[in-house]
Amino acid sequence: MSNRNLTLLTDLYELTMMQGYFESGSDETVVFDAFYRSNPSGSGYAVCAGLAQVIEYINDLHFTDGDIEYLRSLGIFKEAFLDYLKGFKFTGDIYAIPEGTVVFPNEPLVKVVAPVMEAQLLEPALLNIINHQSLIATKASRVCYAAKGDGIMEFGLRRAQGPDAGIYGARAAVIGGCVGTSNVLAGQMFNIPVKGTHAHSWIMSFPDELTAFRTYARLYPTACILLVDTYNTLKSGVPNAIKVFTEMREAGIPLIFYGIRLDSGDLAYLSKEARKMLDAAGFTDAVISASCDLDEYLIRSLKNQGAQITSWGVGTNLITSKDCPAFGGVYKLAAILDKETGQFIPKIKRSENPEKITNPGNKKIYRIYNKQTGKHIGDLIALDDDNFSEERNLMIFDPIHTWKKTYLEAGTFTLRLLLEPVFKNGECVYESPDVMTIREICRKELATLWDETRRFNNPHEVYVDLSRRLYDMKYQLLDSLNEFVDGADQ
Amino acid sequence: MSNRNLTLLTDLYELTMMQGYFESGSDETVVFDAFYRSNPSGSGYAVCAGLAQVIEYINDLHFTDGDIEYLRSLGIFKEAFLDYLKGFKFTGDIYAIPEGTVVFPNEPLVKVVAPVMEAQLLEPALLNIINHQSLIATKASRVCYAAKGDGIMEFGLRRAQGPDAGIYGARAAVIGGCVGTSNVLAGQMFNIPVKGTHAHSWIMSFPDELTAFRTYARLYPTACILLVDTYNTLKSGVPNAIKVFTEMREAGIPLIFYGIRLDSGDLAYLSKEARKMLDAAGFTDAVISASCDLDEYLIRSLKNQGAQITSWGVGTNLITSKDCPAFGGVYKLAAILDKETGQFIPKIKRSENPEKITNPGNKKIYRIYNKQTGKHIGDLIALDDDNFSEERNLMIFDPIHTWKKTYLEAGTFTLRLLLEPVFKNGECVYESPDVMTIREICRKELATLWDETRRFNNPHEVYVDLSRRLYDMKYQLLDSLNEFVDGADQ
Repeated sequence: MSNRNLTLLTDLYELTMMQGYFESGSDETVVFDAFYRSNPSGSGYAVCAGLAQVIEYINDLHFTDGDIEYLRSLGIFKEAFLDYLKGFKFTGDIYAIPEGTVVFPNEPLVKVVAPVMEAQLLEPALLNIINHQSLIATKASRVCYAAKGDGIMEFGLRRAQGPDAGIYGARAAVIGGCVGTSNVLAGQMFNIPVKGTHAHSWIMSFPDELTAFRTYARLYPTACILLVDTYNTLKSGVPNAIKVFTEMREAGIPLIFYGIRLDSGDLAYLSKEARKMLDAAGFTDAVISASCDLDEYLIRSLKNQGAQITSWGVGTNLITSKDCPAFGGVYKLAAILDKETGQFIPKIKRSENPEKITNPGNKKIYRIYNKQTGKHIGDLIALDDDNFSEERNLMIFDPIHTWKKTYLEAGTFTLRLLLEPVFKNGECVYESPDVMTIREICRKELATLWDETRRFNNPHEVYVDLSRRLYDMKYQLLDSLNEFVDGADQ
Repeated sequence: MSNRNLTLLTDLYELTMMQGYFESGSDETVVFDAFYRSNPSGSGYAVCAGLAQVIEYINDLHFTDGDIEYLRSLGIFKEAFLDYLKGFKFTGDIYAIPEGTVVFPNEPLVKVVAPVMEAQLLEPALLNIINHQSLIATKASRVCYAAKGDGIMEFGLRRAQGPDAGIYGARAAVIGGCVGTSNVLAGQMFNIPVKGTHAHSWIMSFPDELTAFRTYARLYPTACILLVDTYNTLKSGVPNAIKVFTEMREAGIPLIFYGIRLDSGDLAYLSKEARKMLDAAGFTDAVISASCDLDEYLIRSLKNQGAQITSWGVGTNLITSKDCPAFGGVYKLAAILDKETGQFIPKIKRSENPEKITNPGNKKIYRIYNKQTGKHIGDLIALDDDNFSEERNLMIFDPIHTWKKTYLEAGTFTLRLLLEPVFKNGECVYESPDVMTIREICRKELATLWDETRRFNNPHEVYVDLSRRLYDMKYQLLDSLNEFVDGADQ
């Protein structure tokens, strides 16, 4: 991505608004929150991802002469504003939840504190990147959960929504738990494992299946997974694979990593029959891998049916998050800095849909863990000048949904602030871990969740409380808006 | 895209197979077909798109020193093969259906005739690009059909699956019929119209809505669409918009393109009420535009309810093709050239799923139109050396589904060959039209379809017949495979 100029990857209205602020001399510092409203795919949580690419994007921001020329050609921008764009640089602060962290609705995943024109420009690209990668990381974590420790390979490049969706989707899939990808460019860019053997076309390009298998085995004896379903899995593919493995054994070639891949048919039945045939021939450590329109539900079902598959390739359903192909992240104004007082004036957007009402103010997020077990108890969205402590009792409750309260006694819980500084005065102050490290962060994060939160159907809804001060501020603001509208009526 | 090296945007197994062919000295010339098996979103057709980017990708193919170094680091490639990759260049022929053409299942959208190693490398990127853009172009054509001539704007950048999905998705959406996009970079890259006004944050950053509207109107008097739902659409937003339009009228500012945008609530009710209020104030030509989780079904429903909306912004559901986020294009070996005879030896892949059986041989596609009306009658997939003529009677039938036959008398129909030469001996011989021209091609293409084919529910299934020779070849090949498997049993 770094060799592409994505500065114009924005919506036109951001630029028309920027010119509006520019013309009206507004250089107010504002707080924008990027958050989402519901977990994708009916999940009980999401995994955030994409921050490294947001950082690259912001570091690269600059309007080239060609960009300025193009904007001039639209006939809606004045020269003074175009001059401003020529010298544009991001000068604000950004806070974000590290990639691989589990997150919940309404929590700011990214918080931008910057002059309004700068904050506005970032909106579409920032959301695009975070939405996409968080979507795929979340989906991958579900697929991996279904596989109960078996390796999941990301195989979806050809069905991804464009090159980036393949490349960054592979990155996100590995963050969410996949052991690797078939995508070579993603392997190169992110130093993640790449895997793959051969396709049906390989088999078909030889006079017969056995010759195709033999040729492949001669070339790749140490990673020899043979695709057995081109003609007839149990009558032709598996017997021919066994023939080749037998020849290798007889020739003294060590069988290090070998086995078969199923790509069609009844995977439960075929894998069980293939297992019996391989075992009977003495190939008890031969791997049976499978691919074929898999997703978390199908893998769970196959496991429940006793399918003898231990390695899974997942394509379309993962790389597009097919059952829920959009992560609904939004970017909303939360506060404006009052230059005289240095205080943030909270802003709220109300809506006819109650779940679309925003949380006002400059905020932070506490994550609360059980001190003994390390398990996640809940999150608390608070104002930036709220202060909670592990040394004091804490009450979290869910005022919106149930009014149910949970009392936490001092000493029984630990607190962690989720948002970390990423940019300070326009300078990046954050170093992104490499992808395999983020994958490990994600693994540990997921381990703090209860199984009840991870299950696919009706997962336990994790509490995300608002601090008392934030709650009161929110409803006072809503009240004041009601007065405003009532006044407009008269 | 052209400033990115996408050569490694491939699956690892393509490279391991390439090495396999390299090692076994196979330089056979093969035919691969890229086709799909069912229309997305329950549609009666699809719109193909993405060819211009496939051409860019193939023209740019080259393995850099860094690429070779990366592949060497994987430890599975031999130096001789890496040397071959260093000098890699595509030398084959490619035929494709022009972008914007309506297409049907099982028709080769792209046909690659090339040495097997080269043909194999292209598979993932070619499918990725064609699958993505055809998916979005098809979805856009449906959304535009629902809007019955109203303009549809593509607004989905922030929800697209990564930057490319936003950029090339916007391109495909315009091909499918959208009048423009909010995505500035797509506008710059493809010279397509960009549009946009302001967001809720603009309204919220002013002390009140009226001031926000006035400021915007002062700056953009000739394209003044005001977002009216930030506080209360009918009690605050629309009255304030009318106040601003009245002030403009009284000040003698010409109201050229102006109106309101609804982004939440009951769009049918709100648009009708807003229309009355605008009309009563004398603003009968004020535009009412709407956005808010729209898709083809919702737009159709709103039109049926008499909603007074004439301009639509469609985001998430279009840019992700939410109800069907993958276009299932595949890339299958169809034939191998016999060097001695110069004939193509047909190849077939059979499957336990009948619809997954491929069509063998080196093929072409005839499209058949009614000579009088210009309406589409059906398509005929034939062998490359089949010859049909407008001068002779033609029978098309659907042997797979119904055995129903349609006789066409000579002189009553016209024939058009769909596949056009794109590469010859590795050189591009095709010039892609600009996007707005492709959009016009698509508009004319869609006009050849019957409404019955375009409807959303149970569309009429268009006949795609096989020529008699192709049909016979296919089933003879399947028979011979059965013998092969039977033989393996004994």
